Amino acid sequence: MTNPASTYGGQSADVPMLFFSPGACSLASHIALEETGRPYQAVETLLSKNQHQTPEYLAINPRGRVPALAVDGKVMTENTAILTWIATAFPEAELLPEDLVERMRCIAQMAWFSNTPHIFQRAKFRPYRFVDREDVYDDIRAKAVSSYWECMQEIDALIGDKQWTMGDAYTVVDPYALVFYGWGTSNGLPMRDLASFTRHTEQMMERPAVRRVIEREKNPHFWSKRLG
Amino acid sequence: MTNPASTYGGQSADVPMLFFSPGACSLASHIALEETGRPYQAVETLLSKNQHQTPEYLAINPRGRVPALAVDGKVMTENTAILTWIATAFPEAELLPEDLVERMRCIAQMAWFSNTPHIFQRAKFRPYRFVDREDVYDDIRAKAVSSYWECMQEIDALIGDKQWTMGDAYTVVDPYALVFYGWGTSNGLPMRDLASFTRHTEQMMERPAVRRVIEREKNPHFWSKRLG
Repeated sequence: MTNPASTYGGQSADVPMLFFSPGACSLASHIALEETGRPYQAVETLLSKNQHQTPEYLAINPRGRVPALAVDGKVMTENTAILTWIATAFPEAELLPEDLVERMRCIAQMAWFSNTPHIFQRAKFRPYRFVDREDVYDDIRAKAVSSYWECMQEIDALIGDKQWTMGDAYTVVDPYALVFYGWGTSNGLPMRDLASFTRHTEQMMERPAVRRVIEREKNPHFWSKRLG
Repeated sequence: MTNPASTYGGQSADVPMLFFSPGACSLASHIALEETGRPYQAVETLLSKNQHQTPEYLAINPRGRVPALAVDGKVMTENTAILTWIATAFPEAELLPEDLVERMRCIAQMAWFSNTPHIFQRAKFRPYRFVDREDVYDDIRAKAVSSYWECMQEIDALIGDKQWTMGDAYTVVDPYALVFYGWGTSNGLPMRDLASFTRHTEQMMERPAVRRVIEREKNPHFWSKRLG
């Protein structure tokens, strides 16, 4: 197999190449890579310009979604997998607990992010994925927003008094959680009412890796907003 | 913390206790545990009798979903995490590739199962999760069925000429794939037209662990049906 990333002028096959779009959930993987302090290449793949639907990108990820991560000529998709890869490939960054059950609980939390709040975000912005009748899009959107808000309250309760989402230690679950705070804010939800989740976001904004990535992405949910 | 599984008369904390409902996606985790040949306890938690909404079960999994797996007094949820735990805790069963990227590609495929076809199955059976207007439930269901069918075609193409879903080796992704074949059949979709996916299901039915679990669950999608 040709290295699919070579189309994008990859530096070398063993430098991970992340395909991201500012504002998308790829922010989580982008931050986690930055946290490792190891070399990687971030390739902007603008959803707004349909750059995820070009033949070049569909050769990377036939599902046309971001994030995707190319490593050694192979491509991984899905934040849950990419974030687990980052934490496992760079254990010195300590981005997942060593204890196996605790590690799997982190994977479970990421899977829930991707199959629950993310789905409601999709239903809000792409109601046509769930119904063919245009006249009910607004009903789909309304339900999506209220369900998304329930998920935000659940994340707030999950964080509770803990330092980070999963406990005292920072993990790859944390940048993934940040994605949902940003989306909630941009969707006009009263995220500031969620004390634990807001504290978590403020802590995230103090991390140099997080600030660098948000600035590099000019991330529309955080950049130049006073969230931290 | 009290061992949450003790409510259910667990044998001992180090025997994994799986909470499943026949017909639910917990079939995947149930089969994978059986494949290891190691002791475990399977606790029927009937969704049809709301046994996933009892205070006892909500103490296990506050989200009220199956599967859940209790190990050493801790609970994991989500097939993606439970299946990864099974493969990692029992490496001699060889249920995930050793190569890290290949392993993560398996996790990505499981995440996609849970955030794409599973969502359409949910939309078909629980349209009220996506809209409050009862008069459009049938429109939601119709879209869900056609999107589910697209996913089935994608799984069929993914299997293609490979022996198993992810390659020549059987992995935990395979019992998870089986769940969707069973749902597709019960939903009246022409699953037999999908040659690769049908061959995959037939191969699954030849595995003693699969047959034992389907019989134990009296799994409504497979048991006493001629699918193998």
